[in-house]
Amino acid sequence: MKIFKVEGTLVSTNRIAMMEHKPLLTVIDKPGGTPQVAVDPVGCKPGDWVICCGSSAARDATGVKGYPSDLTIVGIIDNWEE
Amino acid sequence: MKIFKVEGTLVSTNRIAMMEHKPLLTVIDKPGGTPQVAVDPVGCKPGDWVICCGSSAARDATGVKGYPSDLTIVGIIDNWEE
Amino acid sequence: MKIFKVEGTLVSTNRIAMMEHKPLLTVIDKPGGTPQVAVDPVGCKPGDWVICCGSSAARDATGVKGYPSDLTIVGIIDNWEE
Amino acid sequence: MKIFKVEGTLVSTNRIAMMEHKPLLTVIDKPGGTPQVAVDPVGCKPGDWVICCGSSAARDATGVKGYPSDLTIVGIIDNWEE
Amino acid sequence: MKIFKVEGTLVSTNRIAMMEHKPLLTVIDKPGGTPQVAVDPVGCKPGDWVICCGSSAARDATGVKGYPSDLTIVGIIDNWEE
Repeated sequence: MKIFKVEGTLVSTNRIAMMEHKPLLTVIDKPGGTPQVAVDPVGCKPGDWVICCGSSAARDATGVKGYPSDLTIVGIIDNWEE
Repeated sequence: MKIFKVEGTLVSTNRIAMMEHKPLLTVIDKPGGTPQVAVDPVGCKPGDWVICCGSSAARDATGVKGYPSDLTIVGIIDNWEE
Repeated sequence: MKIFKVEGTLVSTNRIAMMEHKPLLTVIDKPGGTPQVAVDPVGCKPGDWVICCGSSAARDATGVKGYPSDLTIVGIIDNWEE
Repeated sequence: MKIFKVEGTLVSTNRIAMMEHKPLLTVIDKPGGTPQVAVDPVGCKPGDWVICCGSSAARDATGVKGYPSDLTIVGIIDNWEE
Repeated sequence: MKIFKVEGTLVSTNRIAMMEHKPLLTVIDKPGGTPQVAVDPVGCKPGDWVICCGSSAARDATGVKGYPSDLTIVGIIDNWEE
């Protein structure tokens, strides 16, 4: 798993049906890094440092079997410093 | 998931049979970036900023179970700026 | 999917049994790039520009369910220029 | 598989339920490298050099079928030098 | 698949039970490259140039269904030059 910082919510009104009903957040792995998009089943807020799981495990980690995610937040880190 | 910009349609008349019947688009992750090829089940046009899903989730995200894709567009982003 | 140029055939007489009976080609993603090895179920020749699928989708894309490939050619691109 | 050095334990009190009951360690692939997070089913201590398995194999390697991991420690290396 | 050169055997007496009974080799993709660890079901010796398969296909390629590998040697290349 990799460590990311939550930036904000991503708005995409035009999604495939399988992706509905889960929040998508933009996350970065370092200051100035390229934002990636993660599914958030935990409930994060901007500024949180989180653990994200990729690969096929990202799918079930959403809590919905077979969800089409390749990056899912699986935990919020306590006391991580930049 | 990663964020890409749609460039255009990719023409490949000689494909494996499993890949028929879905449009393939070239997408880039930054200006001047190397184009990649994504399956488009959403209906995008050049210039759109899109979310693409990779890994094994890219397959079902096409809407066809077991489709041979490793990069599939899963949503169009509202109001994304370069 | 990513775009590659076919370089040539790869000869490996000592393979695992599961890999028999499919041609392996060396492909590069840019001039001078590191060659990778792709399974070719399409029938390509050196100089062709091709679309290659990775991840778990590369397996079924060979046309043989469960084939041990992580990079498979799924189409030849019409009119691609270097 | 890739080789990592164990740095320490990662505390994340707020995890998804599927991730409970397994220790998470921070690991680096070289001095000064970006820390990644691995599930530890072996029982490692900081300073150990370990083999980590990624991709879908990381899931079963935890010893719990379908565990949501994309990086799992599968062995401690004897006599590895930095 | 990617091309690697076999360096040597990796000794890790403390492994997960699922990994037993298969040799692990260190391999590099270029002179001075970072060594990775591959499962060897073929029978290679140091100096051999080999094809390695990653992703989920690396698992079955070991010859043991569900083996926890993300990099497996699937063939020895004839007449490859550095």
